[in-house]
Amino acid sequence: MTRTVIESKTKTVTIGFDEPFCVIGERINPTGRKKLAAELEAGDFSTVEKDALEQVACGAMVLDVNSGAVFTNKMAEDPRYADNNFVEPMLMKELITRIQAIVDVPLCIDSSVPGALQNGLEMAEGRPLLNSVTGEEERLEAILPLVKKYNVPVVAISNDDTGISEDPDVRFAVAKKIVERAADFGIPAHDIVVDPLVMPVGAMATAGQQVFTLVRRLRDELGVNTTCGASNISFGLPNRHGVNAAFLPMAIGAGMTSAIMNPVRSVEMEAIRAANLLMNHDPNGGAWIGLAKVLDAVKEGASFTEASQAAAAAGSGRGRRRRRG
Amino acid sequence: MTRTVIESKTKTVTIGFDEPFCVIGERINPTGRKKLAAELEAGDFSTVEKDALEQVACGAMVLDVNSGAVFTNKMAEDPRYADNNFVEPMLMKELITRIQAIVDVPLCIDSSVPGALQNGLEMAEGRPLLNSVTGEEERLEAILPLVKKYNVPVVAISNDDTGISEDPDVRFAVAKKIVERAADFGIPAHDIVVDPLVMPVGAMATAGQQVFTLVRRLRDELGVNTTCGASNISFGLPNRHGVNAAFLPMAIGAGMTSAIMNPVRSVEMEAIRAANLLMNHDPNGGAWIGLAKVLDAVKEGASFTEASQAAAAAGSGRGRRRRRG
Repeated sequence: MTRTVIESKTKTVTIGFDEPFCVIGERINPTGRKKLAAELEAGDFSTVEKDALEQVACGAMVLDVNSGAVFTNKMAEDPRYADNNFVEPMLMKELITRIQAIVDVPLCIDSSVPGALQNGLEMAEGRPLLNSVTGEEERLEAILPLVKKYNVPVVAISNDDTGISEDPDVRFAVAKKIVERAADFGIPAHDIVVDPLVMPVGAMATAGQQVFTLVRRLRDELGVNTTCGASNISFGLPNRHGVNAAFLPMAIGAGMTSAIMNPVRSVEMEAIRAANLLMNHDPNGGAWIGLAKVLDAVKEGASFTEASQAAAAAGSGRGRRRRRG
Repeated sequence: MTRTVIESKTKTVTIGFDEPFCVIGERINPTGRKKLAAELEAGDFSTVEKDALEQVACGAMVLDVNSGAVFTNKMAEDPRYADNNFVEPMLMKELITRIQAIVDVPLCIDSSVPGALQNGLEMAEGRPLLNSVTGEEERLEAILPLVKKYNVPVVAISNDDTGISEDPDVRFAVAKKIVERAADFGIPAHDIVVDPLVMPVGAMATAGQQVFTLVRRLRDELGVNTTCGASNISFGLPNRHGVNAAFLPMAIGAGMTSAIMNPVRSVEMEAIRAANLLMNHDPNGGAWIGLAKVLDAVKEGASFTEASQAAAAAGSGRGRRRRRG
């Protein structure tokens, strides 16, 4: 049985075929969030802290921590800031320190900069998830030794030196290559969480089917857990949450075991909790019933975040349920 | 390729693995609708006509017509009315006449009374779907000759003389038996639409997984289309629409090709249209974009039915799309 174990100082989260779907909160990411990048540049971590608390209250089981900020002002003063190899390692350290001080879920250390990943691995308590390796040669050589040295699981994105293939068989082959290369380093398949890459269905009509087929093959043939950037599927379409809310249960039914996503969105979280129930991964429906209460509060005017935080504070079924291990 | 062809006088609907999910509207059913039964007893067909129009506008591709009314007042005056074999054949005729006069979608003739099915088959224009045969001996002997004589497809419910089994392997075996018995009558598998029976997940935690596994087996091993009473899955749970809206995409992903359901519910219809898009059964996303416009109108205060009727009347993308064949 494939079990990917991720840990904080006090909590264990297991990604697996017989586990509730693992929601990895994506919000702590300055890439494309200009305001957040500017705050971080000014040493202001209040949004990061708010995002950490809100995501956990809404049901994130793991928090992704991405250090991909561009410090525009500092860059003008000091040319070293133009280099992400300079900025991100420092920032990753600070982000992890701040986040670990206020929430107790495991972290997913997310950067394209090896030095930032290294610093993240040093700072994170427990057994974080590393994000990510790809099939690119340089990346394999840089990341797999870190994965082995720190004995952590890693997200493997199925693109390689030729880019992202539109052919799902090629993406499967890239994933297979990464799993094999990891094995050469002594890294077991259960510590590889493959991202088969989700294309927008509005641009590629077969995008949904590709993912469902790939996830099933990755599970059956490679025995690996899977993850994805779920919201990509609906890029460019009207009513995106409606597409996401059908995609997630379908992907879960096909065997997808985690996603990097925004847990502060009630529509998607409702779809995931219903899918958990339908997969028999919600004993006695406790999490579903807990969510129904939160949604009742939303109907009465609370925001999903407020209602979730109130429920978590009250030690409701959902709050308790997240406290695993 | 398994294609179940259903026809009205002017429209063809195909249930199939490569077709949009077939929504069979369930509303025209006096069983458990006391008010409707009383209206029908009084010769008032206005609710039936309203339900027919609304369901088609909201996206029903086929209308189920169930004649299971109990005529309490007439029963007191005339003991023959205590017998459904007396009531239903007359009522079925009248229902079909009224419905065919105002909508042009194919019908699904639904009764436990063979005489009502026979009358329905006589009255329905085109090639209706018959609902239903089971694995019960008496039922097989009564219904399969009708199916053969009128050359129509039939819904096959996977219970038999021993009742409804909680064991999905037994339900599969019953479905297989029906397909084999139908073959003895010269009825091809593509004219059998199997209902694997959906149990409430609140009462049986494996109910969802059972359906997904059964649907896949029915498709792969018997090559048949499938249907279900979708809302059974959420019986007894809070926030039922949320469960249904995850169940339908997951069932579609597993290979379910139709459901008998309430198309006037926007949450479920949105889930189905998103699933169609993700299965690549919505060319250019036309139906999804059409629905997004309807949902925009709902946000502005219209009911889903009103907005759907307005869109259909305006000959929107969705309206045109339903006019197949």
